[in-house]
Amino acid sequence: MKLTILGCYAATPRTMTNPTSQVLELNGHMFLIDAGEGTQIQLRKKKLKFQRINHIFISHLHGDHLYGLIGLISTYSLLNRQSDLHVYGPKGIKEIILLQLRLSNSFTGYNLYFHELESKESEVVFEDDRVIVRTIPLDHRVYTNGYLFESKPGDRKLRIGAIEDLGIDHCYYRKIKQGGDITLEDGTLVRNEDITYDPEPTESYAFCSDTYYSEAIVPIIKEVDVLYHESTFLESEAHYTERTKHCTAKQAAMIAKLAGAKTLVLGHYSTRYDDISLFKKEAAEVFEGTIENADDGVIFDFTK
Amino acid sequence: MKLTILGCYAATPRTMTNPTSQVLELNGHMFLIDAGEGTQIQLRKKKLKFQRINHIFISHLHGDHLYGLIGLISTYSLLNRQSDLHVYGPKGIKEIILLQLRLSNSFTGYNLYFHELESKESEVVFEDDRVIVRTIPLDHRVYTNGYLFESKPGDRKLRIGAIEDLGIDHCYYRKIKQGGDITLEDGTLVRNEDITYDPEPTESYAFCSDTYYSEAIVPIIKEVDVLYHESTFLESEAHYTERTKHCTAKQAAMIAKLAGAKTLVLGHYSTRYDDISLFKKEAAEVFEGTIENADDGVIFDFTK
Repeated sequence: MKLTILGCYAATPRTMTNPTSQVLELNGHMFLIDAGEGTQIQLRKKKLKFQRINHIFISHLHGDHLYGLIGLISTYSLLNRQSDLHVYGPKGIKEIILLQLRLSNSFTGYNLYFHELESKESEVVFEDDRVIVRTIPLDHRVYTNGYLFESKPGDRKLRIGAIEDLGIDHCYYRKIKQGGDITLEDGTLVRNEDITYDPEPTESYAFCSDTYYSEAIVPIIKEVDVLYHESTFLESEAHYTERTKHCTAKQAAMIAKLAGAKTLVLGHYSTRYDDISLFKKEAAEVFEGTIENADDGVIFDFTK
Repeated sequence: MKLTILGCYAATPRTMTNPTSQVLELNGHMFLIDAGEGTQIQLRKKKLKFQRINHIFISHLHGDHLYGLIGLISTYSLLNRQSDLHVYGPKGIKEIILLQLRLSNSFTGYNLYFHELESKESEVVFEDDRVIVRTIPLDHRVYTNGYLFESKPGDRKLRIGAIEDLGIDHCYYRKIKQGGDITLEDGTLVRNEDITYDPEPTESYAFCSDTYYSEAIVPIIKEVDVLYHESTFLESEAHYTERTKHCTAKQAAMIAKLAGAKTLVLGHYSTRYDDISLFKKEAAEVFEGTIENADDGVIFDFTK
């Protein structure tokens, strides 16, 4: 599980800070989460093979999470993309994109699917045999969802040496990978655990931005491996959180603690602060797990 | 007259190239022309006081000329802009911007006026006592206008020494600035040219991008001081111009020649070319005036 931070600052893009966008690589998938202005430039700067992105998850329709989406969609057209692209986001996102494509007389040469969200309950929005993605309803000034990404357990891994020594035929490999025991021709029972290793551990990532402090999300993200939680403010500006519906680093840490997250990644910093290490410092007063400061361009490898 | 190139490359933004946007400073005005993705970042990089921009001119609704507009409009809101902002562009631009503002529950604290264009004839879109701006109908895949910016002649300049020597009262200064002669109390006629200098010369700038080769624009831009004309291709790719409705450097030069422009600025280069100096070279085969290669971040001072 690898997380590339393309941008993690609040509000307006500046010379040195980019609005929210990140790439999550999980179990063979490359997911884009949010797309502030300049996302496609950041994807190029990080030399990511961004044609591999087939699923884009947008938290809400504020510009610092959205305004780079239309540019990326258009660029995919110019690059002659062929594969399907799925966009998940609040109702209205389809109209925004299609209006701009229509008025520029541009049409994507690939299939562009919109999955518009309206529910205030957590729901599964994507699932295949490798990953499942659910919404995390957040409390912000407009309708907003975070997203929980979980990899599914893969097959057990064959101990080829042991299997060959026992003379087990290839045709049983699939059964063994799926956890089955084997009875040899002489009647001996071979237990699965003696001829396999455990599968890769599952991994999970929760993206929660933007949001006011909300304990309602704790049951959804319980025991998550990595929690990215917005921390727009330090304690000294805590009085801004209610009006703006944002959080402090300490509140993010409290959510991480209640959820039993292993790692907390802080981000969505207000650009009023020069030293983002203070966010980590304040969060550490509450949360004893690992705390990371997101920053533009940083890559976290969370592979277990 | 000062021109700052924020971006001058065609199609998708890349790590080192920005889509079209430029700032024209003319007779006290700061105009923004086109706004590809990343325009606000480029404005900051060039340290321009972009709150001074009150008029934005958009040529057409292709993304590489437009996708940075919504971000700039939103940023002005966050920066608590108070002064009116006028946006000129093809019909549909208002719907694109207002839809995005509405769905993000954002409203500008300043007055935002849209001047939507539909005419295929040149028309005056802005005029005050300092500058007049007209459209230049272009021939592109979608409805497109270039813009002609002309400064108006200012007052004549007083020769204070000569005026004081003649004992002319302050109350006549306004009349003198406007070109009037003066009769002294003893009946002597003082000719205006003896007590004034000429006003600042007028200056003109024509922005023509994107467009197919079109001699129809020549009468509109006749004798322009500076012509920015798109030159997407070199001669080796001239066969692409008809389908894409773009021009070669040589065609841009031909328009400059026919119009009698003093200076030609080339831009909107396809990113297929590594060496943009070739554009200037090919144009110089046709046009004998000054030729400049636009490039991102370059500032041209055309003050007479």
